[in-house]
Amino acid sequence: MTARRWGRWFALVRGPGASADGDPSSTARDTGRLEAISDGVFAITTTLLVLEIRPPTDDSNLLQGLIALWPSYLAYAVSFLFIGQVWANHHVMFDHIRVADRVVLLLNTLLLMVVALLPFAASVLAGALRSGHDQRTAVAFYGIAFDVTALTFNAVWQYASRQGLLTEGLDAASATAIARRFQVALAWLSIGALLGAVLPVLGVVVIAAFNAYYWLPIRGESAPVRSAR
Amino acid sequence: MTARRWGRWFALVRGPGASADGDPSSTARDTGRLEAISDGVFAITTTLLVLEIRPPTDDSNLLQGLIALWPSYLAYAVSFLFIGQVWANHHVMFDHIRVADRVVLLLNTLLLMVVALLPFAASVLAGALRSGHDQRTAVAFYGIAFDVTALTFNAVWQYASRQGLLTEGLDAASATAIARRFQVALAWLSIGALLGAVLPVLGVVVIAAFNAYYWLPIRGESAPVRSAR
Amino acid sequence: MTARRWGRWFALVRGPGASADGDPSSTARDTGRLEAISDGVFAITTTLLVLEIRPPTDDSNLLQGLIALWPSYLAYAVSFLFIGQVWANHHVMFDHIRVADRVVLLLNTLLLMVVALLPFAASVLAGALRSGHDQRTAVAFYGIAFDVTALTFNAVWQYASRQGLLTEGLDAASATAIARRFQVALAWLSIGALLGAVLPVLGVVVIAAFNAYYWLPIRGESAPVRSAR
Amino acid sequence: MTARRWGRWFALVRGPGASADGDPSSTARDTGRLEAISDGVFAITTTLLVLEIRPPTDDSNLLQGLIALWPSYLAYAVSFLFIGQVWANHHVMFDHIRVADRVVLLLNTLLLMVVALLPFAASVLAGALRSGHDQRTAVAFYGIAFDVTALTFNAVWQYASRQGLLTEGLDAASATAIARRFQVALAWLSIGALLGAVLPVLGVVVIAAFNAYYWLPIRGESAPVRSAR
Repeated sequence: MTARRWGRWFALVRGPGASADGDPSSTARDTGRLEAISDGVFAITTTLLVLEIRPPTDDSNLLQGLIALWPSYLAYAVSFLFIGQVWANHHVMFDHIRVADRVVLLLNTLLLMVVALLPFAASVLAGALRSGHDQRTAVAFYGIAFDVTALTFNAVWQYASRQGLLTEGLDAASATAIARRFQVALAWLSIGALLGAVLPVLGVVVIAAFNAYYWLPIRGESAPVRSAR
Repeated sequence: MTARRWGRWFALVRGPGASADGDPSSTARDTGRLEAISDGVFAITTTLLVLEIRPPTDDSNLLQGLIALWPSYLAYAVSFLFIGQVWANHHVMFDHIRVADRVVLLLNTLLLMVVALLPFAASVLAGALRSGHDQRTAVAFYGIAFDVTALTFNAVWQYASRQGLLTEGLDAASATAIARRFQVALAWLSIGALLGAVLPVLGVVVIAAFNAYYWLPIRGESAPVRSAR
Repeated sequence: MTARRWGRWFALVRGPGASADGDPSSTARDTGRLEAISDGVFAITTTLLVLEIRPPTDDSNLLQGLIALWPSYLAYAVSFLFIGQVWANHHVMFDHIRVADRVVLLLNTLLLMVVALLPFAASVLAGALRSGHDQRTAVAFYGIAFDVTALTFNAVWQYASRQGLLTEGLDAASATAIARRFQVALAWLSIGALLGAVLPVLGVVVIAAFNAYYWLPIRGESAPVRSAR
Repeated sequence: MTARRWGRWFALVRGPGASADGDPSSTARDTGRLEAISDGVFAITTTLLVLEIRPPTDDSNLLQGLIALWPSYLAYAVSFLFIGQVWANHHVMFDHIRVADRVVLLLNTLLLMVVALLPFAASVLAGALRSGHDQRTAVAFYGIAFDVTALTFNAVWQYASRQGLLTEGLDAASATAIARRFQVALAWLSIGALLGAVLPVLGVVVIAAFNAYYWLPIRGESAPVRSAR
């Protein structure tokens, strides 16, 4: 077979996006779908976090048992708010991405794959905080999971902006500003993971502060988002 | 750096809603999305409630085992109907909220975070009713979980109405009526939690009555909701 | 307070649908939403069925262990196909329901509450078939769960058709035909539950046959459903 | 009863799609709904995969415990990427299917039923890789689960193309090309399952390579999918 024929064979066997057929109707909704299934994964993942919190098995003192679960509540809250943050920024990102090619699909799937792992990371963190053993490993593991999420997030944006897949209305300065915002998140979470490997409590504080910083309102901020209603 | 430059840095690093860019298309669907992801969390949470009901492990008498699970069925039904209630009222609320700023997003995320915890609270309640131990703690804990849900619910409405984020068609009297309705729910559930801390059975009755009251049809009520079909 | 004032107080405190305000935009999408959240519950419930199938713990002979799980596969398949059936018929039903009042909301919530319990019923059935104990109780319990699903289903349709909430395009003969179809399902599943209480195998066969009957294509059937694309 | 009367009775009792009533509005959105509920099952199934990864119970060395879970991470990643692949191709398929009759509904339900089982198959694989016992059985079982997914996938397409349910814009050559692509997937996964039954490691490599092959970008590929925005 010639290289050209192999190429056709590849194009035949491969999945969506491989062919540039002239029919826009069949593929035009792709980023909408991508956002819909991503939203689904975000919603399900946040809701599954609760399954890692097991009711106290010792019946003798329920109140004490409920209080002793504080590491689970902490891991639950930090993870929930983080995924909420990822969800909100995911929409901001895809509001500016005009088209999704195969690489964007792949990178977004990797992003979702890491996000869907977060309940496991939360469970590892809560377990270590409860038992008091190996907290440095647990906090570092938890921070790395957040960090890899930020990494795949940055990868989507970097790829899309370099390949010219952004909406035309977005000027270069804004694209850079968004890129910088995502890079700051990556750096922040890397520091949290590193600090956690040395001083677990500080690592948790840095990671929790990340949520607080992004979620809390800015003093003097105005101009709320207008609704489409 | 001057305060102004810090402000710009903040606006750069922060998430969605921080900037009032002139492009409405990118942010215009925000309350629609917020409602969609909230609906997802409500649907998943109600469905996860079943995972807290474990089949009887004692094979010797299945019928007896199934009957002995009545606390789980009770916790399941009360929690399911309550979340259904929250879902329905969430739509009523956001039908009247025109725009969502960062604080609305945060408060709504806190609301979802509490709702997604309810399967855990249901499990704690069912466990205590089954074992007969610490029922006062369990009912109070369960009632407080409902109560905090109502609290975040009220917070969204209070914030939105004070910040002028409501739809223009809604007059002040209606806004107050809705606020009062949400406040009654908060008071009702607070009483349920308090009573439960003293008399567990009474607490459960008050909380269950809350569901019954809001769900049962009003005698003579008419004018059904018109469909968009 | 006079009865009239109590009525106003009720209308104030109660949830959605209580007031017939002149603004159709706020409530017009209600059956659409109801269907969306119902679809969510159906999808999640079918997917949660798999959690009841635990991998064999005995490592010595995996193949034998996988084969010994046949009751779980059976309960999985029958429950999955049944919920798929409920989903499909739920759409048929709400295609003909013009408006949803509070009672429809309540009955639909009860329907979802029973459907979301089916993974538990499937687990009970699989456990009894595996252990060989109390199979009559288990099959009857499983059949009753299906039966109550059909019962709430019939309740929605009966209420909606008696209260004049159906679409105007639907003639009385068609409404009756649909009602009869739902009644046949109720009778069929009742028979399955009753038979299962006496002869477990026969009960399972009758319930499984219900799925087969409704899903298998009719010989000579034509006129496929037209798509909106 | 005559055959004709039995036919009417069948049509009466059976579910959606049985009657070709002249009202297109009631059934026109069917493939849209089918896709929506399929997306829901895909999203939930991928997210449930994480529940099969249990945190290490041995507290003495968490890092070692986390590393020892590599079979779970492997099964998680391969399954997640595979379901993502199925999701993407499912959209490609239904972009070309104009109408869904009862058989398409049934075949698609069987497809979803197999997909929703994949977390169980992943758990079986991870368990065997961890314990080192019965790996051939586990890999073959895992491969067969993937294979049956591909089989039901092919069944939907074969049925739809033979029954003339495809969109009119799709020429015969393209329909054949799509069919061939799906057949290659079926053959590939069959080989993976067979090899796994002999040489477990090779089976896993072949199945993982399937993902890599379909997801990785093609060199020189261009023409990204256009968005509807």
